[in-house]
Amino acid sequence: MPAPLQNDNFLRACLREPVDHTPIWLMRQAGRYLPEYRATRARAGSFMGLATSPAFATEVTLQPLERWPLDAAILFSDILTVPDAMGLGLQFAEGEGPRFEHPVRDEQAVARLQAPDLDRLRYVFDAVASIRRALDGRVPLIGFAGSPWTLACYMVEGAGSDDYRLVKTMLYARPDLLQRILDLNVQAVAAYLNAQVDAGAQAVMIFDSWGGVLADSAFRRFSLEPMRQLVQRLQRTAEGRRVPCIVFTKGGGPWLEALAGIGADVIGLDWTVSLGDARRRVDDRVALQGNLDPAVLFAPPAVVQAEAVAVIDDFGAPRRADGRCGGHVFNLGHGISQHTPPEHVTALVEAVHAHSRRQRTPA
Amino acid sequence: MPAPLQNDNFLRACLREPVDHTPIWLMRQAGRYLPEYRATRARAGSFMGLATSPAFATEVTLQPLERWPLDAAILFSDILTVPDAMGLGLQFAEGEGPRFEHPVRDEQAVARLQAPDLDRLRYVFDAVASIRRALDGRVPLIGFAGSPWTLACYMVEGAGSDDYRLVKTMLYARPDLLQRILDLNVQAVAAYLNAQVDAGAQAVMIFDSWGGVLADSAFRRFSLEPMRQLVQRLQRTAEGRRVPCIVFTKGGGPWLEALAGIGADVIGLDWTVSLGDARRRVDDRVALQGNLDPAVLFAPPAVVQAEAVAVIDDFGAPRRADGRCGGHVFNLGHGISQHTPPEHVTALVEAVHAHSRRQRTPA
Repeated sequence: MPAPLQNDNFLRACLREPVDHTPIWLMRQAGRYLPEYRATRARAGSFMGLATSPAFATEVTLQPLERWPLDAAILFSDILTVPDAMGLGLQFAEGEGPRFEHPVRDEQAVARLQAPDLDRLRYVFDAVASIRRALDGRVPLIGFAGSPWTLACYMVEGAGSDDYRLVKTMLYARPDLLQRILDLNVQAVAAYLNAQVDAGAQAVMIFDSWGGVLADSAFRRFSLEPMRQLVQRLQRTAEGRRVPCIVFTKGGGPWLEALAGIGADVIGLDWTVSLGDARRRVDDRVALQGNLDPAVLFAPPAVVQAEAVAVIDDFGAPRRADGRCGGHVFNLGHGISQHTPPEHVTALVEAVHAHSRRQRTPA
Repeated sequence: MPAPLQNDNFLRACLREPVDHTPIWLMRQAGRYLPEYRATRARAGSFMGLATSPAFATEVTLQPLERWPLDAAILFSDILTVPDAMGLGLQFAEGEGPRFEHPVRDEQAVARLQAPDLDRLRYVFDAVASIRRALDGRVPLIGFAGSPWTLACYMVEGAGSDDYRLVKTMLYARPDLLQRILDLNVQAVAAYLNAQVDAGAQAVMIFDSWGGVLADSAFRRFSLEPMRQLVQRLQRTAEGRRVPCIVFTKGGGPWLEALAGIGADVIGLDWTVSLGDARRRVDDRVALQGNLDPAVLFAPPAVVQAEAVAVIDDFGAPRRADGRCGGHVFNLGHGISQHTPPEHVTALVEAVHAHSRRQRTPA
């Protein structure tokens, strides 16, 4: 029997229910900018050493919550666990990004590809269960996965890319091959996220990190539509409560209205979009998550606070004149940088909580 | 006395005047994907060896025009010539991007910065004059420069960057220092572009390659506003004809309406935006340039042609029901990739010319 939730502001904001302050969490909040993270990582030996050990994953997931009253925890893991479990052979070489030993680049490789046995991802579900126990009801736990398109990018390119030449060549020259990869990814990611929810995840987020590199019509067909199918397959209730789904396409501003229509509760936004404009465009049909530029955290605390206030004011008062409610989950527009001074995060969290409480105090 | 222009479709489209076909040119059309370019570059010894020699610059500028009936030529040069002339010490190490020996990172360096003596950029104006003579009226010549913000990025970072940490830290922590750099860049770039026009450039383009990395309010203040000031200072008539100004912010889709209001004749767009939507947003108050994903050129010629037709159809018929005219200059949404097979460009140019001529034939 899980402990009752002491702070459900995050879940409530996702569902556009009243909250007493704007909840905040930070993408990659358990990360290299924290000395305690670097220490645990050194003990684990490698990034995958951390991610594959439920004990280490639990330890680093909770580290930022020990420092700050963040309103949500997010599973410590990586989006590439799924293609790794498909047999692509994930490698993290020191000082480089991730690589796959067996990228999927031709008809034969695509034909061989199969949805992964979820048993190979057992370590993730064990980490979710372990983190839930450790959280003991303090804040909700977010599970996550990569979007079908974003995973396809890595699976075809075999690594990060500047120009996405290989996957875009497949997209334009052999859309049938890309479609088969995407169909498999929809299936695999749906099963993966549902298993995270079964293990205790109280919200799920889909990271479409590379949707923004696509042309308008290609985005709609190869990123948006698979995400729509994925969202439809998600289990949306657990422990008697709705499990909110967040979709974040980096650079997805041009497609905000379309993204708001695929069934997610929350759309994540990067900093290139004004939250106020975005809110008008979606007319509070979904909640919004974001969208401070992580680079603001390099500036002195007073500037961090002023910029955080500007984001909250740009979103505006949650309750509208017509009585309906908007939902805002404060976040950065991208993962926190390893060069961030942790004391600037202190200023950020304080400013978000204090200013949003003031915003809710009747004058 | 310059030769009369034989093909002015590009200039006419920029000014939303009727044309007999959609003009096309390609960003970085004189580049590494052409074997003849690689041969000239080998003779010149280096990229800057090409750019600083009017003879070599003329040779490579004309190379793509020998292959294809492109509707405009663009000066072969680099946006970093201006900060180089300010004394920052531009270096192109083999296999790496450009670097500055003396980046501008603190109060002292910013105070020392001065607008460049245009004599140090004489080689650029000589190249413009030489290319005009060599073109002999075939098509118009486009001059160009980097935007004040984009130059500031390189000047502060000292090189390309993944996260723009140094320049964004300056932006948020010391906006006064960044503002002084931008003010100088406005002055310097205006003088530089006007000197290119004096030397024979018939249109000018401002490359805001990094405007799209900024938060909404930061973009408006530190990229858009300096570009507005710059555009106001440009000489807009030469040889008895209007000199069109093109502004291209990579990732600038969110700010299209604002960009359309700064006085430019043409707004360049990358492929994330639908041209038809963009045209409706600006209501034909400016012409649009773009926006095929350069990755389409990796696909077989039949796909290239279909995608080119889709871009033209998305823009729609130039003449509207109310009799007003839109303007479309076909281009990629970014520079052409070095991995592009030149014969795919053949298919592209043919498709753009043929389909747009058909579009103008009464049924």
